[in-house]
Amino acid sequence: MPKNSQKQYNLLFSLSKHAKTLQGISSLLEWDHETYMPEGSASIRAEQVKTLAGLVHQCKTAKEYEGALGSLINIKTGALKAKDLPLPKQRALIMWRRDFVKAKALPTSFVEEFAALTSKSVSVWRAAKEKSSFKEFAPYLKKIIDLCRKKAELIGYEKHPYDALIDEFEPGETADNLAELFGNVKPSLVSLIAKTQTKKKIDDSFLRGNFDPEKQMELGNEILKDIGFDFRYGRVDFSTHPFSSSSHPQDSRITTRKPSDNLIANISILMHEGGHSLYEMGLPEKEYGSPLAEAVSLGIHESQSRFYEIWIGQGKPFWKRYFPKLADTFGGKLKKVSFDNFYKAINKVAPSFIRVDADELTYPMHVILRFEIEKALIEGSASVNEIPDLWRSKMKEMLGIVPKTDQEGCLQDIHWSMGAFGYFPTYLLGSMYAAQIFDAFQAKNPDFEERIQKEGLSFIKDYLGKTIHRHGRQYDSRELIKRATGKAFSPAAYLNYLQKKYGA
Amino acid sequence: MPKNSQKQYNLLFSLSKHAKTLQGISSLLEWDHETYMPEGSASIRAEQVKTLAGLVHQCKTAKEYEGALGSLINIKTGALKAKDLPLPKQRALIMWRRDFVKAKALPTSFVEEFAALTSKSVSVWRAAKEKSSFKEFAPYLKKIIDLCRKKAELIGYEKHPYDALIDEFEPGETADNLAELFGNVKPSLVSLIAKTQTKKKIDDSFLRGNFDPEKQMELGNEILKDIGFDFRYGRVDFSTHPFSSSSHPQDSRITTRKPSDNLIANISILMHEGGHSLYEMGLPEKEYGSPLAEAVSLGIHESQSRFYEIWIGQGKPFWKRYFPKLADTFGGKLKKVSFDNFYKAINKVAPSFIRVDADELTYPMHVILRFEIEKALIEGSASVNEIPDLWRSKMKEMLGIVPKTDQEGCLQDIHWSMGAFGYFPTYLLGSMYAAQIFDAFQAKNPDFEERIQKEGLSFIKDYLGKTIHRHGRQYDSRELIKRATGKAFSPAAYLNYLQKKYGA
Repeated sequence: MPKNSQKQYNLLFSLSKHAKTLQGISSLLEWDHETYMPEGSASIRAEQVKTLAGLVHQCKTAKEYEGALGSLINIKTGALKAKDLPLPKQRALIMWRRDFVKAKALPTSFVEEFAALTSKSVSVWRAAKEKSSFKEFAPYLKKIIDLCRKKAELIGYEKHPYDALIDEFEPGETADNLAELFGNVKPSLVSLIAKTQTKKKIDDSFLRGNFDPEKQMELGNEILKDIGFDFRYGRVDFSTHPFSSSSHPQDSRITTRKPSDNLIANISILMHEGGHSLYEMGLPEKEYGSPLAEAVSLGIHESQSRFYEIWIGQGKPFWKRYFPKLADTFGGKLKKVSFDNFYKAINKVAPSFIRVDADELTYPMHVILRFEIEKALIEGSASVNEIPDLWRSKMKEMLGIVPKTDQEGCLQDIHWSMGAFGYFPTYLLGSMYAAQIFDAFQAKNPDFEERIQKEGLSFIKDYLGKTIHRHGRQYDSRELIKRATGKAFSPAAYLNYLQKKYGA
Repeated sequence: MPKNSQKQYNLLFSLSKHAKTLQGISSLLEWDHETYMPEGSASIRAEQVKTLAGLVHQCKTAKEYEGALGSLINIKTGALKAKDLPLPKQRALIMWRRDFVKAKALPTSFVEEFAALTSKSVSVWRAAKEKSSFKEFAPYLKKIIDLCRKKAELIGYEKHPYDALIDEFEPGETADNLAELFGNVKPSLVSLIAKTQTKKKIDDSFLRGNFDPEKQMELGNEILKDIGFDFRYGRVDFSTHPFSSSSHPQDSRITTRKPSDNLIANISILMHEGGHSLYEMGLPEKEYGSPLAEAVSLGIHESQSRFYEIWIGQGKPFWKRYFPKLADTFGGKLKKVSFDNFYKAINKVAPSFIRVDADELTYPMHVILRFEIEKALIEGSASVNEIPDLWRSKMKEMLGIVPKTDQEGCLQDIHWSMGAFGYFPTYLLGSMYAAQIFDAFQAKNPDFEERIQKEGLSFIKDYLGKTIHRHGRQYDSRELIKRATGKAFSPAAYLNYLQKKYGA
């Protein structure tokens, strides 16, 4: 009965929208946590986040919700009942059912406990990082890992408990698959990095200096506007760890670190977070509350941020547009640098400790390192106390350097404190997806270099909007990439890109 | 059965705490609305606020909640059943029952509609004020007044629909009572104002100038610390309309306007909002979720802000402490001004358009004006379209001046856009309470002038903490004032204070 399907669909949509609204509020609380919250408010914030997580979970596992969903799709088998609905709605149902099955596997009390613990842990981690004191963070991390392992058991998995965790961020991805994918690119990366280190040292000293932070922000905001970031529906603030946070396509916020002595860092961060934000702003607002207005996966999300940060923001066309402005604004040594030397400098490769500051060639090593440690922690082959040593030895092995403190080692990232195990791999997947999307973009827009210089950057958003953003979760990562690029996903585009750029 | 009472009490407490946590989140959303929210996010913010309001209302009227409450107190008659509980808990029950009866009178759909409309209206008002376009705001205001009148009917009242509205902000207060109280003080105020206007003009030109905003904020924050505002649990931001917003004693935030050319304005605002915040920070944290950790009324709240703003912040001891610092920091003409002339200048009386900038003697007129208009709107004897004219004629009558624009007339305040009809009278009640509290404070602390100069301001917070803050809603306004001051409430202290200061 078509009419009845639509009615049930509307009921499901409105229940889901209610939950999504609460999730959006929770995003805002997390944004506040990282930007403006007083330091002493961590306990009540944990309580607030826990309360919302509990309500969302209750709503998305409630009898009424299950009833509406179950009338449209067989919850056990996934077989669609409402075949009279238009295709996108059918796809939404498949996603709704997927989320329901996972949510139903977790008791509300577990979800609340997880939310409260991780909200508190973020504050503990921040203080521990400040003091470079891993032992202050360790007891919390132990609890988080225990809960993550429990979560994996509750959700279930075929081969590896880590599979259940990564599935939350990159549906369908597995530990084995990632190990193979990352294992395949690792040797090429190692040899490319080695090659760059034997060449003549690139002078990038002119990128360091005492650059007016306000002017840095002005230029950054100008660039954000240029890529199509709409300040009516978003804003930029400062936080220790830059992030993008969206509670709705009409309220999408990003952060950057306080501008530093590194002239390019702020622009890179803003391009990166701006890329995330454009994805969120580009989701179909009318579908807010349904999977049709949600991002596919964190890998696809990261493909958007890396696309802007690296493929656009470290490319020649972009800097042909912005280098004269940069030199004009900050003057000094910059005025005497040739475009070619500038371009070489911003693409300089050098092993370093901090992932978010890493160049694009050593960056994947940071991700692979975390992936290996996470996997070991979750399967129980490594313990929390071993992390600092493990970190140092893997850094030595992969990048040939060893951090002196945990602050620039295993305490640098916020993710574990948020309970986000299985998240890091999406950073590398994102780059791989981005490379393939960029090839397709280039093929469709052979004049893109010229357009960037003549008309600006907003046409890129239009392209990504059509090929990626507007589809929501209609297709999974791999299918979306195939539809957007005309090819099955493979790391080839990524390796070719790096080979061409750094192999010569 | 004592044990059972305690059990039921705990259940009620935990349900109430859940609702309170959601209300706290809503406060944070309102804070964000006024401080950082992108302008285009008003619709989704309205949806978020509506969702939370609905959840809070559902929770506080749910069967389970009613069951727990009803087992401890007779909901119909208010007769206590759980007489074995300690007295403060019995008092909490009386308040819980009071809130329940009022909440139950409103359908959840009404609460949601009200929350969504007013959240949206705040944005409309802000834009209308900017353009001084009353007609843009009028349709929203009409809807708000309709809903307020409907609310009054739903809640019920004895004499005047306005009684039902003011009861939300000042429990037990009525339109008749206020009309009498305000009517009694009005003639004295009018004659005092007239007196000040015939005297020699006070020169306060040295208070205007180009004062470094950063230094203004530095000094303001120093003063906030001095009164005992704890920046670990609070913060200060900018907004068009200064306010204080608390989601928990450990997360209490205030705002001020961007420092202007008026040297005293920022300090006044921070003392005022700081006074509000100290009340919230001083509520017993362990009771969070119960009426024992809630403010008594907005009148009592305002007594705390006015106490700091006026009775401390415009007094001689305070400025003996801070005037030298002020003169040192901002130099210029200030260096040549005597303390006596400075003191006269900051207490200068002159009718003006903007309530929040008004001196303490003309201020009550602004409140009485709004009270009269509100009452007329709610009883239907005046319509929304008449407001601008009504405003002008009442300003003429009470203060002898007429605003040229609605921006500095009937559009100046945020309250109506928030649906807060019945709120304004508490501003004057607060001053009256503050005067009486100050007399008692002075009697208990005969050396307070000396202490302020020698040891700073934090002992005042200790005094107010003991007499006002820590009691939560154990006593109603009048009883609290009686306990705190040893006298029944009357406007005598207020009138005496003004007479002494301005009548000479």
